[in-house]
Amino acid sequence: MVDCIIVGSGVAGISAALTLQANRKTFLIFGSKSLSEKIEKAEKIHNYPGLSDVSGKEFIAALQTQLSDAKIEVNEEKVAGVYALKEGFTLLTQGGEQYQSRAVILACGVESVKQIEGEESFVGRGVSYCATCDGFLYKDKTIAVVCTTKRLEHEIGYLADFAEKVYLIPMYKNVEIERENITVIRKMPAKIEGNLRVENLAFASAPAENIPEKLPVNGVFMLRESVSPAILMGGLQTENGHVIVGRDMSTNITGCFAAGDCTGRPYQYAKAVGEGNVAAHSVSEFLK
Amino acid sequence: MVDCIIVGSGVAGISAALTLQANRKTFLIFGSKSLSEKIEKAEKIHNYPGLSDVSGKEFIAALQTQLSDAKIEVNEEKVAGVYALKEGFTLLTQGGEQYQSRAVILACGVESVKQIEGEESFVGRGVSYCATCDGFLYKDKTIAVVCTTKRLEHEIGYLADFAEKVYLIPMYKNVEIERENITVIRKMPAKIEGNLRVENLAFASAPAENIPEKLPVNGVFMLRESVSPAILMGGLQTENGHVIVGRDMSTNITGCFAAGDCTGRPYQYAKAVGEGNVAAHSVSEFLK
Repeated sequence: MVDCIIVGSGVAGISAALTLQANRKTFLIFGSKSLSEKIEKAEKIHNYPGLSDVSGKEFIAALQTQLSDAKIEVNEEKVAGVYALKEGFTLLTQGGEQYQSRAVILACGVESVKQIEGEESFVGRGVSYCATCDGFLYKDKTIAVVCTTKRLEHEIGYLADFAEKVYLIPMYKNVEIERENITVIRKMPAKIEGNLRVENLAFASAPAENIPEKLPVNGVFMLRESVSPAILMGGLQTENGHVIVGRDMSTNITGCFAAGDCTGRPYQYAKAVGEGNVAAHSVSEFLK
Repeated sequence: MVDCIIVGSGVAGISAALTLQANRKTFLIFGSKSLSEKIEKAEKIHNYPGLSDVSGKEFIAALQTQLSDAKIEVNEEKVAGVYALKEGFTLLTQGGEQYQSRAVILACGVESVKQIEGEESFVGRGVSYCATCDGFLYKDKTIAVVCTTKRLEHEIGYLADFAEKVYLIPMYKNVEIERENITVIRKMPAKIEGNLRVENLAFASAPAENIPEKLPVNGVFMLRESVSPAILMGGLQTENGHVIVGRDMSTNITGCFAAGDCTGRPYQYAKAVGEGNVAAHSVSEFLK
């Protein structure tokens, strides 16, 4: 069991990791070795103290060097969920691994893509965020996959191995995956409909040539870089999608702290860095 | 009238300045061109994301370059006080200048030297923080000057021009100032005593050779790098010397925000940078 698990490898998570290490705590950090797609895409960062007008790529490179100097390695397993136990927490990965910790810092960012109408109400009834967890449930079925990033294309392949038919609705350019049973549809998904379970994925605009207004499907997979904190951790209090935290970054769940964009605006590197630092200090206090 | 006045040139103040500039707000920042004695003295900084194991001096140099690139200049006039008016704020300098703003960010740090017993109760009755404001009141009198940093030695000279006798109690090494009417005393001041006004400055330990237990004085000047926020701005709510702030860094005074060490622990660069950023965004919101 480690002292703390950090979910997210953006600047909030990295700040927390560096500070936990300075405080001699054991921890795991889950995310991506490329750290954050959002930072990487930033053209210029004008207001981060200490780095004059760096590009997102330069910032990422500096952070990667720093992590490597500090011998901190990001665990790239995708997180399926975090569960508060009687004592401590268990993190389950989408690959079925388990990790235990005494405290948790959620630094999972905010999803810039809005939730689709009906999405939350059909979670567990046809809506899934995890290909490897739930893919087998859709053997020989028809599914829609809304995917926001090319990095998750391999998960689409995984789903196509099970499903009879896959409608892929990509939110990124240059789709590379090609399979006989995958049909790419470039339209904005608007609503998930159904009764007891998901029945249709409806689109936003008027039907175009060859694209129906709605797709009859058995399931909808939402493959996003980050998962909403409330879905990641049941019972977490949120407001408008943001985790409710105190000045010490504590959430309503004892031992669970949050930092960075997931706690609300401003969505700024400096703010995220500060909150990651405070969350790490609060974890150190909590562990006493 | 500028949009905002920032008091303090540590990382919290700098972060606020860079973000106000990014938000196209007009502002003044008061502090020191050498930014922060505290950062300068830091041996190594291990947990500031983006800068691997920099020394305090390197961090200061990076920040100075960034400010100069951004054409942000620190105003070195010493701040005597900030006053909330019916609309906006007035800052008075110790040199008697006035500056107006619509909002204020206090980023004045925490004084690592503790207050002396009796100090706060005798403010305005013999205790002063401002040589140029109050020096003339002590013409031909006897005063004690407790000075925490060599940078303020010139103020001692100013006081010695008026006073008949100056007892200098330095909290730094290598005292350079020499005057006939200045006596340097190397002891820990413990208590300011008196009735209606200051009468004595008492020391902590037993009287040593040639140093009495207490000095009979007409006034005590406390010359410190930073002034406690509550003394800087009357009516500000504090707790254990820290400004009480919300998640948006607002204080109990409308339009007045605070950031950095003055809002409480952890005293960390990352935390200060984050809070400066949030305070600047809150100012932008407030100005709407």
